[in-house]
Amino acid sequence: MSETAATEIADAVRHRFGEATPEVEAIPGLDAVLRLVQHRSQRRYVAGRAVDPALLEVLCAAALSAPSKSDLQQRDIVVLEDAAQRRRVTSLLDDPWIGEAPCFLVFLGNNRRQRQIHEWRGHAFANDHLDPFFNAAVDAAIALGVFVAAAEAVGLGCCPISIIRNHAAKVSEILALPDHVFPVAGLTLGWPSEPGHVSLRLPLAATVHRDRFDDREIRAQIDAYDRRRAAVQPYRRQRYAEDYETVPFYGWSEDKARQYARPERADFGAFVRAKRFDLR
Amino acid sequence: MSETAATEIADAVRHRFGEATPEVEAIPGLDAVLRLVQHRSQRRYVAGRAVDPALLEVLCAAALSAPSKSDLQQRDIVVLEDAAQRRRVTSLLDDPWIGEAPCFLVFLGNNRRQRQIHEWRGHAFANDHLDPFFNAAVDAAIALGVFVAAAEAVGLGCCPISIIRNHAAKVSEILALPDHVFPVAGLTLGWPSEPGHVSLRLPLAATVHRDRFDDREIRAQIDAYDRRRAAVQPYRRQRYAEDYETVPFYGWSEDKARQYARPERADFGAFVRAKRFDLR
Repeated sequence: MSETAATEIADAVRHRFGEATPEVEAIPGLDAVLRLVQHRSQRRYVAGRAVDPALLEVLCAAALSAPSKSDLQQRDIVVLEDAAQRRRVTSLLDDPWIGEAPCFLVFLGNNRRQRQIHEWRGHAFANDHLDPFFNAAVDAAIALGVFVAAAEAVGLGCCPISIIRNHAAKVSEILALPDHVFPVAGLTLGWPSEPGHVSLRLPLAATVHRDRFDDREIRAQIDAYDRRRAAVQPYRRQRYAEDYETVPFYGWSEDKARQYARPERADFGAFVRAKRFDLR
Repeated sequence: MSETAATEIADAVRHRFGEATPEVEAIPGLDAVLRLVQHRSQRRYVAGRAVDPALLEVLCAAALSAPSKSDLQQRDIVVLEDAAQRRRVTSLLDDPWIGEAPCFLVFLGNNRRQRQIHEWRGHAFANDHLDPFFNAAVDAAIALGVFVAAAEAVGLGCCPISIIRNHAAKVSEILALPDHVFPVAGLTLGWPSEPGHVSLRLPLAATVHRDRFDDREIRAQIDAYDRRRAAVQPYRRQRYAEDYETVPFYGWSEDKARQYARPERADFGAFVRAKRFDLR
């Protein structure tokens, strides 16, 4: 089975990254690596097929077993079980499919617990600067990545919903988040009803550096990526068409440059500061 | 095999989180979930047993297959191959074992590519605020979490080295990081020579919330965690003993409160701003 996995990994890497990699030696565990290389965001789920609460608990345990900065465990998960409570969050978002997912979770950065510990132990917290916010965000993101890996290992599908950050203050109010606790991303979860799609990626030659950062070839690499991606996953429409002339070739870089030519989440810093983080 | 996995997962959760969970139904893929629940940081590696470069490449591919905010792929990996170059980084750190690991990687947040795309596509970047820094950090952390999952699936061991952020400017200089690129964490990798240890965690009852954030029981939960942890993994010495009276019971919360009673990485915000991130 592992020999098959090695070949399938090579195929999956070639498809996603557009480049050949040397085939790995067949060793136990490659099947799990193959699943990670085959990761697909899933936005459509079997209606009415619930996720067993015991399984959901175990997936949370897997996520919260992941590494955490200084062993501080500055991340939590909120599982939105109540239908009305979920609707409060998902109705903020434009995509109706999110509200239809069997499960919706929110991954939180939590620096509050650390401050409570300082208070209870009688040692003043001496780190009111960018670090605590950064560490909590990173802890939450690591947990999110591992949750997705765990869920996909048993055949479940997920999609991270970072757009909840566009409504951070409202989400925070709905979830009753206190100071020093903030949403990093939502996550939909369910049994996939469609194959989903593999998101093509920039070549490893561009994103894995040897010894030092080197992006001298990046423009040509992005051009080639735009073309490769358009051949497999063409954009169905040109973003913000009202603002731009229609271009004959519309690729990833054009789409992303248009997306962030408009301000998004310009108030996120103000939200984080209102949660009493000092970002100096 | 999956039925055994279900039982082993229940055991692993009980050990790490200190609480019983309902046993999950035996379904395919639970073996991979079990490995995630059994995650151990590994700091000791078989000397002279290299990691096959083809395998390392595939682990990077797995990590970079993980979800990425807005499909922007704002994270990169630097593999430190050259021994002298690795020593430049690891000699900044106090722990000599880090320099002895067969592989050392650095996970980067990379918002530079996005800005290049804007320049090349002729659309001004309109998001100079906290968001790009946050998104790149989260992308890098997700990739780190999935890298660890992939490595452990084939029996490799890792340990994230967040302490490189204590030397962010120097690491950045050594790795030749340009503006808008920053180190999130290092990672050691190798074939483990010791069993390693499972880091006990706060109970899921404290870190998995239902519908809204609720930490009314947190003080008692932390007290119980301190005791449970001390019974299995007692601290060998009391941190910063020169500054504090020796306490008869020394637990996790005392250790963490002492650790962050001293400033750590107070210059990280200045470093990030010097990389031309606006954190408003």
